[in-house]
Amino acid sequence: MHAPAELADIAADVLARIRDRSPRVHCITNTVAQNYTANMLLAAGAVPSMTISPEEIVSFVAGADALLVNLGTFDEERRRAVTIALDAVATARMPWVLDPVFIERSPGRAAFARELLARGPTAVRLNATEFGPLFGGDPADEAAARVAEACGTVVALTGDSDIVTDGAQRAVIANGDPLMALVTGMGCAGSALVGAALAVETDAWLATNAALIVLGVAGEVAAAATHGPGRFASWILDALHSLDRATLRAHIKVS
Amino acid sequence: MHAPAELADIAADVLARIRDRSPRVHCITNTVAQNYTANMLLAAGAVPSMTISPEEIVSFVAGADALLVNLGTFDEERRRAVTIALDAVATARMPWVLDPVFIERSPGRAAFARELLARGPTAVRLNATEFGPLFGGDPADEAAARVAEACGTVVALTGDSDIVTDGAQRAVIANGDPLMALVTGMGCAGSALVGAALAVETDAWLATNAALIVLGVAGEVAAAATHGPGRFASWILDALHSLDRATLRAHIKVS
Amino acid sequence: MHAPAELADIAADVLARIRDRSPRVHCITNTVAQNYTANMLLAAGAVPSMTISPEEIVSFVAGADALLVNLGTFDEERRRAVTIALDAVATARMPWVLDPVFIERSPGRAAFARELLARGPTAVRLNATEFGPLFGGDPADEAAARVAEACGTVVALTGDSDIVTDGAQRAVIANGDPLMALVTGMGCAGSALVGAALAVETDAWLATNAALIVLGVAGEVAAAATHGPGRFASWILDALHSLDRATLRAHIKVS
Repeated sequence: MHAPAELADIAADVLARIRDRSPRVHCITNTVAQNYTANMLLAAGAVPSMTISPEEIVSFVAGADALLVNLGTFDEERRRAVTIALDAVATARMPWVLDPVFIERSPGRAAFARELLARGPTAVRLNATEFGPLFGGDPADEAAARVAEACGTVVALTGDSDIVTDGAQRAVIANGDPLMALVTGMGCAGSALVGAALAVETDAWLATNAALIVLGVAGEVAAAATHGPGRFASWILDALHSLDRATLRAHIKVS
Repeated sequence: MHAPAELADIAADVLARIRDRSPRVHCITNTVAQNYTANMLLAAGAVPSMTISPEEIVSFVAGADALLVNLGTFDEERRRAVTIALDAVATARMPWVLDPVFIERSPGRAAFARELLARGPTAVRLNATEFGPLFGGDPADEAAARVAEACGTVVALTGDSDIVTDGAQRAVIANGDPLMALVTGMGCAGSALVGAALAVETDAWLATNAALIVLGVAGEVAAAATHGPGRFASWILDALHSLDRATLRAHIKVS
Repeated sequence: MHAPAELADIAADVLARIRDRSPRVHCITNTVAQNYTANMLLAAGAVPSMTISPEEIVSFVAGADALLVNLGTFDEERRRAVTIALDAVATARMPWVLDPVFIERSPGRAAFARELLARGPTAVRLNATEFGPLFGGDPADEAAARVAEACGTVVALTGDSDIVTDGAQRAVIANGDPLMALVTGMGCAGSALVGAALAVETDAWLATNAALIVLGVAGEVAAAATHGPGRFASWILDALHSLDRATLRAHIKVS
């Protein structure tokens, strides 16, 4: 069990390490979210790459420090790219994040997400509607802990509050702002930040918490200065870019 | 014939219903416009989805309330996705919008647009240069009314002023701002808004008017606060997000 | 040898011609950068098109005034589109720009970039890490001049300072701001601006200088008003949109 102040400091440490080490995060993500995800990683201090070409993805993954697998805009080519990338990840023993976007809308996508889950993601970030199709059952607190333990992964169930659990430990993060839900790709970008955090922090539960705390607090800072989703989308990048330890400590809401 | 004040109120009503019902609009659109289109729909209160994968598009369309078919970045896969999606739309009797982007530049794309026109879009939004390749003839006022009647669709011919006609009725909307033409995907996003409006208003002529009035007035509000296309692109989303009946009434310019 | 004031005036002239003639720049570029590249071209006064469909790219290139070939998100379809487009460019004797993004990460992409170099791009814009895989050797000043001369192209080696050389002439542009590196697709958009400049200025060395000076000065204007990469990405578009001769003269830093 970590006190909020302690988690704020860990988030600040992880962010400092991202800025210092500039980890490379390779993102297999949907075309809707690519640009915003890349800008989010850059604002945090990480280096994004985005190719999904099966021909060259091994080279890119080999040069990366973490991988994001986002299932938005799922198709045959994407599936092939993911499979090849995960083989490379296994060889390199690199952390990777699964983001099973919209699997509740498409049975084929859900089935593929379950296959990927079996390959052992370091963390899974998803929302309540995606929980059932991936894990079965309702997205309750205990269910998240149970599946996290069973799958040997960190589960980050995001929504009004974010639950982060690896089965043994659990945090509920109440940071963030409703405007975040009005920016397309915000969740996808959050998953990419989890990837960046995993690249610099080997404790996957702490890394996942750190990434979501950082993003949530940046969202609160941005929301204090803007009132619409258009400006907010830019302002949160700026808040992330200049986020400091004092702001993290002042804003953190974790239980 | 509707008085401007009446159309302003209808636009406000349609926007209120979009915010209230959060219709799902599935968009088959080009990769350039995807992100901005999704953000525009979210700012209006609708829920976007964007996959073009032929494998799962039926599932997405089945869960949607309206479909947008935008021909930018036209290719074999896109054509296949559109064909499958339109079969699903016909089954579900769902409204759909055709946006024949840049068909004047590519004979193959124009031919495909004419095939799609034969499948009975609820509305077609296009600009003057696209009119001839789709309908034949010049984009005059009467020509738009004639083809709308012949094709049984609403034609929205956008430009300095927007002409909206179903053959029987006609409105000319003079709202908007020249900065709108300097934001890539603005027209595409407008077509997506037409889709959102069609999902909550069965009178397709009124719905199309409502969407274009809302976007045009949001553009004027944004242009009053910004002077360049970069900021304007964000500001118009914020203006749309907070647009109210009084602003619509004060700004509407319809004849 | 051109004095800074002279190059500032040439940049202003080229920008005025872009605004006046609205050249069409067709961009074969990666999906991450497409939207921002299109908005950058629009802000400068040019008209972007972006399709990569092999079926219709000939039509689009035939109607264009310049072509950008960016190798980000490289795959079989992209390679086919590029090959077809370059055949059309050769027929039309149209200027084209090569941007060999991330070739240091992927041997296959680097090999393809070298094939494209053999087809005689009008200009190549690249950064230091891409220099070796494309040209061999280190990205020194003299090396750039040597390869530019050997390949009969303008080499624009961008970084803290940009070196622009055709072998005979050389300029070092020190304009720009570090925030530019934190916006994804900024380099890609810069290459597209080079394309727009080449469409209105037959001296390729002057055109390339003009585009990079314009972008760098716009970056400085934007950086003076913003402090984070999110807002900066929009502000630089606005700065470009309203850039004038006096600002170019006041800011230019060329040696």
